[in-house]
Amino acid sequence: MTTKYLLNEDQLPRYWYNILGELSTPPAPVLHPGTRQPVTPDDLAPLFPMALIEQEMSAQPEIAIPDEIRQSLVQWRPTPLFRAHRLERALGTRAHIYYKYEGVSPAGSHKPNTAVAQAYYNARAGVRRLATETGAGQWGSSLAYAGRLFGLEVTVYMVKVSYEQKPYRRSMMHAWGAEVFPSPTDRTNAGRGMLASDPTSPGSLGMAISEAVEDAATHADTNYALGSVLNHVCLHQTIIGLEAQEQMKLAGEYPDVVIGCHGGGSNFAGIALPFARDKLHGKEVRLLAAEPTSCPTLTKGTYAFDFGDAVGMTPIVKMHTLGHDFMPPGIHAGGLRYHGAAPLVSKLVHEGLVSAVAYPQLACFEAAITFARAEGILPAPESAHAIRAAIEEAEAADREGAARVILFNLSGHGHFDLGAYDAYFAGKLEDFAYPEEAVARSMAKLPQV
Amino acid sequence: MTTKYLLNEDQLPRYWYNILGELSTPPAPVLHPGTRQPVTPDDLAPLFPMALIEQEMSAQPEIAIPDEIRQSLVQWRPTPLFRAHRLERALGTRAHIYYKYEGVSPAGSHKPNTAVAQAYYNARAGVRRLATETGAGQWGSSLAYAGRLFGLEVTVYMVKVSYEQKPYRRSMMHAWGAEVFPSPTDRTNAGRGMLASDPTSPGSLGMAISEAVEDAATHADTNYALGSVLNHVCLHQTIIGLEAQEQMKLAGEYPDVVIGCHGGGSNFAGIALPFARDKLHGKEVRLLAAEPTSCPTLTKGTYAFDFGDAVGMTPIVKMHTLGHDFMPPGIHAGGLRYHGAAPLVSKLVHEGLVSAVAYPQLACFEAAITFARAEGILPAPESAHAIRAAIEEAEAADREGAARVILFNLSGHGHFDLGAYDAYFAGKLEDFAYPEEAVARSMAKLPQV
Repeated sequence: MTTKYLLNEDQLPRYWYNILGELSTPPAPVLHPGTRQPVTPDDLAPLFPMALIEQEMSAQPEIAIPDEIRQSLVQWRPTPLFRAHRLERALGTRAHIYYKYEGVSPAGSHKPNTAVAQAYYNARAGVRRLATETGAGQWGSSLAYAGRLFGLEVTVYMVKVSYEQKPYRRSMMHAWGAEVFPSPTDRTNAGRGMLASDPTSPGSLGMAISEAVEDAATHADTNYALGSVLNHVCLHQTIIGLEAQEQMKLAGEYPDVVIGCHGGGSNFAGIALPFARDKLHGKEVRLLAAEPTSCPTLTKGTYAFDFGDAVGMTPIVKMHTLGHDFMPPGIHAGGLRYHGAAPLVSKLVHEGLVSAVAYPQLACFEAAITFARAEGILPAPESAHAIRAAIEEAEAADREGAARVILFNLSGHGHFDLGAYDAYFAGKLEDFAYPEEAVARSMAKLPQV
Repeated sequence: MTTKYLLNEDQLPRYWYNILGELSTPPAPVLHPGTRQPVTPDDLAPLFPMALIEQEMSAQPEIAIPDEIRQSLVQWRPTPLFRAHRLERALGTRAHIYYKYEGVSPAGSHKPNTAVAQAYYNARAGVRRLATETGAGQWGSSLAYAGRLFGLEVTVYMVKVSYEQKPYRRSMMHAWGAEVFPSPTDRTNAGRGMLASDPTSPGSLGMAISEAVEDAATHADTNYALGSVLNHVCLHQTIIGLEAQEQMKLAGEYPDVVIGCHGGGSNFAGIALPFARDKLHGKEVRLLAAEPTSCPTLTKGTYAFDFGDAVGMTPIVKMHTLGHDFMPPGIHAGGLRYHGAAPLVSKLVHEGLVSAVAYPQLACFEAAITFARAEGILPAPESAHAIRAAIEEAEAADREGAARVILFNLSGHGHFDLGAYDAYFAGKLEDFAYPEEAVARSMAKLPQV
């Protein structure tokens, strides 16, 4: 039996929720990487259109979603919310488990929620082209899709090792008309510098960010787009939680705990921030971010000022970080391999509004298979961290003899991750210990502010 | 702008449409491969549960869908119907183009519509295990998914060359708990015989069918399941067209032409048969099947009695066929590589109720890219044949200065076909000429009845 809670198109949210407008203390300033002084909107103008810069800094709790964006999002939104009856039965739990499913988007994850918004605002500002980076390709393909909707060219700097080893996401970007380059390239100073020092470099996300930022900064008709971390990205993702709130009303329940996996922070923020609003207004609800033990930014990182990229070209933000120089082990949940965390989520963790938990890779794949066999949807390895947390919440409630209503965000499907599942079934996947020494080394390189 | 026509769960059809009940002449008998006499329900009982055998032969125009099946289908149904505004703009056409999108199912195509129904009826009949064959894996993964829903074990004989070259669908079947063997195997007499004569055989769909049928016939607790061709499979797929009829009413239009791609015939039958009912009752509508020029069963085949499999173990049916011995060239639309066609569709073609058209591979990939860049959905190479036909219909209408309403079935997404897109972008795909001599040779081997 399937119980699905659907909203109709008219119920697609008309605003995004901006928690910046309701926090009791202001966020830490964002610092210029050169001057180490707070950045101004003008500092960001070479990279982003003013509408997004305003959203990045806005204190307005509700920001209207333009009609053009809503009319694009309805291609797949509102997304369904399911009661996981079959998973509950497989676990033998008394807990009620719900999941919001973002894998129904054209790119297969939550990423297009912000890609569409960013493409719209850039197109409206007269931008001709967007430059971005991508690791495994989830974000790059989402932006390639969104760029088509609004007539923007899209240039993607794809980490070279992924470009070579994971050609399918690259083909998807080509299908949507984007140009994709293996980073480091010889198209930017950052890339040429890297190639000069290591011609066989496999690339890294930090390097690809540097190339995309340089491309945007040095071309007047080109802006930069980022798929996570920033306030405006988290803002656009709140449409997930806003829908889920209405759907939980249809189900006649309110969650005791809201769970999302956590890498840069945008899908977690998307499902959690609207419930954080309830919490700020006195409602009792736990917000739980699930991250990998091999890259435990929230559970082991320090709340400090650090660079967003690996080489220190981006603004300096206050966030939970393992140090910008930290290179996470090669787990298959590539979307969770980021040294930092969204400043917004970091602040909420710091203030005790959000808690975090970390899981090793194999436990997450095991949870993913349990889920796939019960619910019939193959999850992305990233989303499997949220599933693991949901299962452990259910088991804990049963041990305590308590009822519990659990809501998690199934942020994407695993259609492009079957190589990882293949390796898991073949017994070739391993767990990585927390890389304590590497983190200690990178933490010694935090910028002085 | 996206215009999406959604139905709510209550509008999920309550019956399947069985055109057998409304044809003016009865279908040709199905013949036993040994006796060449019409098969009886008892002949089929070792393979199928009686409920499906009854559906295979029923003369009742509407067959109620059991609640348990509807409750499973609502996981992804009713599926959306879109007006292809952006494609229309890209083509500069006056025609109105609509598409029904079946890629939203857990397996990514229309196949689960019948997999769920077949698993349900088998489980209700006390069957413990289902055996089936699969080529690239679409059908096998759909049955693996459906088997889980109803507690059935699933054994899949996967064509060996696909098993080795396309591991991802295999991993998906594993994720859903099915056992998958590269065919030919040493588990059946058919497989052992094949291996004895050619130990390095890459396998074929016909061989895999023989193995699955033998597995089912020789195990009392095991039945066989087929993903296309048969009447009851086409029946279960009519839910597509029944939904589309309601959605076209919401759009306020009625199609001039209804299009589906055609391999075994089930997705085409699914969208077209409910409209064929309208046509039988006097409505003017064209029904157009789009197939590959390299395997042009409907456009070049003969309407004759032939075996369903390659080696002559299955019943003999009257259908359009290129000869059961015919091995189609290796196009990437693997789901359309079948020597025969559904007897139901064949009869409608023979009687002039359905027409057919064939397209070469490259023209279909070109149409797929046009569609993906306009509509944001990457289609399966099979579905691309329907897109090609829809585009040519629009262009023809414009040339004639006529208005035209076009509806096609987008039967699946292309997430598992990115290797083919990769090859297309790299200029490595080729068109195959119609293999006239091979067909002549295989047509000489039609069974004498």
